Amino acid sequence: MSKEITSMAADYSQWYNDLVIKAGLADYSAVRGCMVIKPYGYALWENMQRQLDKMFKETGHENAYFPLFVPKSLFEAEEKNAEGFAKECAIVTHYRLKNDVDHPGKLIVDPEAKLEEELVVRPTSEAIIWNTYKGWIQSYRDLPLLINQWANVVRWEMRTRLFLRTTEFLWQEGHTAHSTEQEAMDETVQMLEVYASFAEEFMAMPVIKGIKTENERFAGAVETYCIEALMQDGKALQAGTSHFLGQNFAKAFDVKFTDKENKIDFVWSTSWGVSTRLIGALVMAHSDDQGLVLPPKLAPIQVVIVPIFKGAEQKELIDQKVKVLVAELKTAGITVKYDDSDNNRPGWKFAEYEMKGVPVRIAIGARDLANNVVEVARRDTKEKMSFSIDGLGAQVINLLNQIQSDIYTKAKNFRDERITEANTWDEFVELLDKKPGFISAHWDGTGETEEKIKEQTKATIRCIPLNNSQQEGACILTGKPSSQRVLFARAY
Amino acid sequence: MSKEITSMAADYSQWYNDLVIKAGLADYSAVRGCMVIKPYGYALWENMQRQLDKMFKETGHENAYFPLFVPKSLFEAEEKNAEGFAKECAIVTHYRLKNDVDHPGKLIVDPEAKLEEELVVRPTSEAIIWNTYKGWIQSYRDLPLLINQWANVVRWEMRTRLFLRTTEFLWQEGHTAHSTEQEAMDETVQMLEVYASFAEEFMAMPVIKGIKTENERFAGAVETYCIEALMQDGKALQAGTSHFLGQNFAKAFDVKFTDKENKIDFVWSTSWGVSTRLIGALVMAHSDDQGLVLPPKLAPIQVVIVPIFKGAEQKELIDQKVKVLVAELKTAGITVKYDDSDNNRPGWKFAEYEMKGVPVRIAIGARDLANNVVEVARRDTKEKMSFSIDGLGAQVINLLNQIQSDIYTKAKNFRDERITEANTWDEFVELLDKKPGFISAHWDGTGETEEKIKEQTKATIRCIPLNNSQQEGACILTGKPSSQRVLFARAY
Repeated sequence: MSKEITSMAADYSQWYNDLVIKAGLADYSAVRGCMVIKPYGYALWENMQRQLDKMFKETGHENAYFPLFVPKSLFEAEEKNAEGFAKECAIVTHYRLKNDVDHPGKLIVDPEAKLEEELVVRPTSEAIIWNTYKGWIQSYRDLPLLINQWANVVRWEMRTRLFLRTTEFLWQEGHTAHSTEQEAMDETVQMLEVYASFAEEFMAMPVIKGIKTENERFAGAVETYCIEALMQDGKALQAGTSHFLGQNFAKAFDVKFTDKENKIDFVWSTSWGVSTRLIGALVMAHSDDQGLVLPPKLAPIQVVIVPIFKGAEQKELIDQKVKVLVAELKTAGITVKYDDSDNNRPGWKFAEYEMKGVPVRIAIGARDLANNVVEVARRDTKEKMSFSIDGLGAQVINLLNQIQSDIYTKAKNFRDERITEANTWDEFVELLDKKPGFISAHWDGTGETEEKIKEQTKATIRCIPLNNSQQEGACILTGKPSSQRVLFARAY
Repeated sequence: MSKEITSMAADYSQWYNDLVIKAGLADYSAVRGCMVIKPYGYALWENMQRQLDKMFKETGHENAYFPLFVPKSLFEAEEKNAEGFAKECAIVTHYRLKNDVDHPGKLIVDPEAKLEEELVVRPTSEAIIWNTYKGWIQSYRDLPLLINQWANVVRWEMRTRLFLRTTEFLWQEGHTAHSTEQEAMDETVQMLEVYASFAEEFMAMPVIKGIKTENERFAGAVETYCIEALMQDGKALQAGTSHFLGQNFAKAFDVKFTDKENKIDFVWSTSWGVSTRLIGALVMAHSDDQGLVLPPKLAPIQVVIVPIFKGAEQKELIDQKVKVLVAELKTAGITVKYDDSDNNRPGWKFAEYEMKGVPVRIAIGARDLANNVVEVARRDTKEKMSFSIDGLGAQVINLLNQIQSDIYTKAKNFRDERITEANTWDEFVELLDKKPGFISAHWDGTGETEEKIKEQTKATIRCIPLNNSQQEGACILTGKPSSQRVLFARAY
């Protein structure tokens, strides 16, 4: 089985697909637009989940689980939300199959088992959750309600890409209820900060925090906050969103509470989510033509040890030493794999673990043993070095920290170099092709102009950065007055 | 809000429902047969998941994720499996809603968005997984394939009960592939043992390991192994199953491999699962009329501390001491909550945490402080005792261990007393009503007899115990010869 992948330069999109498949992250499935997340990809997701879940709990949230199905009448209740998702919903209409009398062994949908009310497979859970919250919230004492759900959702996408856009995907969705507008807004911003910290500290992926324009806002939200990352082809990727929902869902589902002064008001709310899309972002943020480059903090295997030997006697000596080293590394909290399988030669293994993005590879041979050293290779820079066997754990921890920090810096430099100001339409159009990245440009603030720019260039406004500096200017397309630059990019 | 629940004696079934709702484990939802798992119930599930996942990984399994939807043509492929689940499947037939022109603001299913092939919402994933494994397995080097999935599944049940039988439920399903029959059988038994250990050591719930009769076998299995528990009303509950699937799915999906001798054969397989049903089992195994009784190893809160005070000065002193104690207990690995909320009086809190089944309650007042002691109450026996504040952590750990062990022993004694031999039909029928539990009786080994017994008494054969002693006898119903007793019971 060849492990060659298309190079980034030759075809970025094919490089990505090849990499996801060859590194064993995911596979295509028999279901249109759905993927199989393979064990290595799922281990990455588990590491992401564990960290995010910890951060959600540290900020006071609890997990719960709400039904997969949303009755159509509930789905309709918040009109904008319904309108936004109606065109991409999987609908359950029947609850039974029966034998096809004309084709023995085959089944058909039983027309007698038609549901009175169709069920929408959740594309997002605001409707089912707010219908539930109605029963849970009466007084300010019931607030805030800070709940998160880990779940699968379905959006019937026309064009799908492994991890980046799949019909079914895994995600978490936080849904909180508050007694004041300010508290809900604070929660919205807090969760944006959680996402940004996770992206930067764990994924080693720099992000820009900002606000979406009305056109790009979540259906049903008053304001959508987002984190935007830049991929190595210069395209942007929305990595997480946090929505201030105002009282929209409380009004749609009639969720009111009595405050301390005995006044009755609608509840304020937020929702926020990240998904398995983050795996796609992670792949594209750091990897190269040899395969994945994973940040040590999320890598399913942080260190792989490969023995180099001739004959059973050398192998035996190496095994003995490695046993001690593995124990030492595990004690230091490092996830380590000793690959002494005899199916493949060391060179094959080196390539395999490069493909899988294992941050540190340790090779150990008989001569190394004699010299009390091991050969250490970094996945990110491919630099090789020699470490003393004494105190290996501490040296490896330092190296892992260094790698985590270096790949962040590399990605940040790359991203920062690709935030460019454009001051004329021609400049804007030229930059999009010649120097893809974020383009900082003035915009007249209207949805019409935004839509025209999108039609003509495929670039969208990724966000209005938080704490954006205010400056007078003229819209890149219409020349109308503008008070600030916004970030445009072509995006995933 | 009253926290009274119906007593077990008055109405066991209502007691169970009241308890699940009042303890905050789950809630009914707007979707027929689906429940909402509330934060406290979900925390219990997370604790179960964490331990099971650890045990799966220790036995060499990895997690992965497969699509929610199964195309009908794949669903049909393994005929018995399809037949077994066809009558309870939710079916997706369309992928879009559109505006209802006759009713502004309402949506209808768009008839133009009808799927060419209907999708079954997975009731179990053998079909979609074996269709995937076909692409992953060519050689003995690809085996064994040891994969588990944490997922939601849907079975359109006619009569539902919170946790015990819901249309949608959460579970894990292991799906393994092996090169030999023996290895697959060993895996089947190994996972049964994992489930039994989990039930007994963590849930403190004794189980009987056994084999299902053909009538009760999983649709598509060659042999179904199970663990059966006994609830406090004398009804049995199937708590987990592990299936030896032979080559059935490999044949249905044409999954072959080349062995070391270059011969080609179909792959051998297993599947095994436990679900959120275990939460229902846990509730019914130990709880009482005051609420839940949870085993310390799974309790979301192991210790609650309630301050008893008059005035701010006493409160301040208690707070200071509790801060130290909480830190000490946390260091000892204990999950502890200090409830100093001023919304409710201590008596209310005591009742609340009894309802929630918190294993140990610590009350601390000004006089206790002066005496350097705290008042400790066990949830299971309601026994109260005084612990010195010095070395509290170690004393509490001992007590938690004692409770874990005691509730297991109590449940085991209860269960053992309710395994009764019946030697005549009259005795059998009488026992079912007068001493509900497992009835050990001879059976002629035919599905017909089993079915007749079920029709007449609602009792089913729960299992043929593993290592069952062989003895000659006569079938309880037909008088035909039998070589062993089997365990009957009415069941959930």
